[in-house]
Parts: sequence; structure tokens; C-alpha cells
Amino acid sequence: MQGISFKDITPLLGDADALQYAVDRMHEHCEPLRPDVIVSVEARGFLLAAPMAYSMGKPLVPVRKQGKLPYQKFSASYDLEYGTDTLQIHRDAISNGQRALIVDDLLATGGTVSATAELVRECGGIIAGYAFLIELAFLDGRNNLSGADIISLITYDS
Amino acid sequence: MQGISFKDITPLLGDADALQYAVDRMHEHCEPLRPDVIVSVEARGFLLAAPMAYSMGKPLVPVRKQGKLPYQKFSASYDLEYGTDTLQIHRDAISNGQRALIVDDLLATGGTVSATAELVRECGGIIAGYAFLIELAFLDGRNNLSGADIISLITYDS
Repeated sequence: MQGISFKDITPLLGDADALQYAVDRMHEHCEPLRPDVIVSVEARGFLLAAPMAYSMGKPLVPVRKQGKLPYQKFSASYDLEYGTDTLQIHRDAISNGQRALIVDDLLATGGTVSATAELVRECGGIIAGYAFLIELAFLDGRNNLSGADIISLITYDS
Repeated sequence: MQGISFKDITPLLGDADALQYAVDRMHEHCEPLRPDVIVSVEARGFLLAAPMAYSMGKPLVPVRKQGKLPYQKFSASYDLEYGTDTLQIHRDAISNGQRALIVDDLLATGGTVSATAELVRECGGIIAGYAFLIELAFLDGRNNLSGADIISLITYDS
């Protein structure tokens, strides 16, 4: 890969029919995973996870960057190109044995999402699956997400 | 006011019925404002604006912190307790004369939301109204938002 491949999702968000279609298809594909709760990674993940939680009638758990959540937290770090970053979840966000569906806009190398899975497990939750609007398949992010179904609506192979 | 009054919305998000109820009531109250587009402020604003856009069948326009949006942008700054911060919108996000409903989780002093209104107007849009889950009425944020209806689902007077 040369340079950074960037996918701009704002044209999809800016088309009301496309937004509803994307949320409805993600909902439909994720229903068989029987999630108890939708876990969402800030900030772009919120744009899809929140309407999915609304439409599926499930609780919504935000995972945020360090220092943004107000209550008792678990933390997990992941590698960036230069340095690391830390994500946090409220300790009481997920009950023991609850099935969590992790939703984000884009699967690239899978760093943020595998850190999110770590947070879910630390709360005692089970990974019901992962759902993405877009998957950059050539970055092999799937290999960092083991043991659960991975759903992506749009896949780029290069 | 002594110290910072902080409202944690995660218990509401974590209750599927409460989340649906909040989105449905905000939708219902905002319908008469006849918005063409929902404008949302990152990151917590996305949690409510995205399901509202989905449920109302309207386009969703994200307003983000400086450097987060990938295309040509307008910028507006607002004052923080110490220093300033800058918000951005894509220049093509709103068409001339379109009615924009600005959605955020919380109305405090109104700094971020009035900067967002400035961005909408710079795109050529009209402010259809403002919608908040929570309004901290004792901070008089309403006084910074003129010329359009302000809807808040929960109001704290102290």
C-alpha cells in the first residue's frame, strides 16, 4: 500500500436514503448474532452504532478516548503509527455474560476495534460480533479480530 | 454556580427503552420545525443526532473538531474556559436555503452550538431550530442562540 487510503463517509451520511439503507442492512445482518448491547467507538462509530441501537432496540455503550468518560473505567491501549492511544469503557457498561456487538464505521488494521473487544471482555462481556460500514480488506484487519463473526457492508480489496 | 455541573448521559444510552423514547420525543418535537438536514456536533451529539436523522429520514451533517474532516471546510472558533477551540463543516454539506436542525446532547453556555450555527449560515443554510436532550437553564445558553426555536427534553434549573 502506498500512502494512506482514506474513505470519506460524509456523502453517505448526507444522503438520507443511503443512511437508512446502510443502517437497515447492518441491522439485518447483525440480528442473527443476537446482541444484547451495541458497543460503539468514538467518534465516527457513533454515527452508525447509535441508529443501529435505536433501530434494533438495544442499549448503546460508548467507548471513548482517555479522560472523556465520567465514571469508573477500564482502559486499553493500542498502537498508532507513532505512539499509542488509549480507549476507555465504563466498568458497569456491560453485565457478565452479555453479548456485545462492536460497531465502527471502518475496519482498517483493527487496532481500535481489538482494544474495544478487550474492554468488553474486561467487563465480563462476550463478543457477539463486529459490524463495519466499510472494510479495507487489503489491510487484513480481520486477522486481529478472532472468535466472532465480522460483518462489513462495503469491502475494498485494494 | 460552584464547580462544573456534569450530566452523564450513559445510563440513558444504556437503557434501550429510554434511548428510543428520547429519540422519538425529540423527533416528534422537531417535526414542526421542518428541517431539511440534521447537523450534529461531535462526539456526544452524534449519539442523538444520528438516530434522529435515521428516524426522521433526513441527511446527517457532522460538525467536527479541527483537522478531522477530509474535504474543503469552513471553520468557526469558540471560547473555552482557557483558550479557544475550532469546529469545522464541509463546505458542500448544506445547500443554499436548506433548513438545518442543530442537535447536541447538552445545552450549557451555548458556545459550541452558536459556533455550529455560524458554520450552517456560512454554508448558506437557515437555522430551523436547536434540539437538546438536556438544557442547563441556569447557564442561560439560550441567550446565545437567537432567531430559532430551542427544544430541550430535560431541563435543569439549578
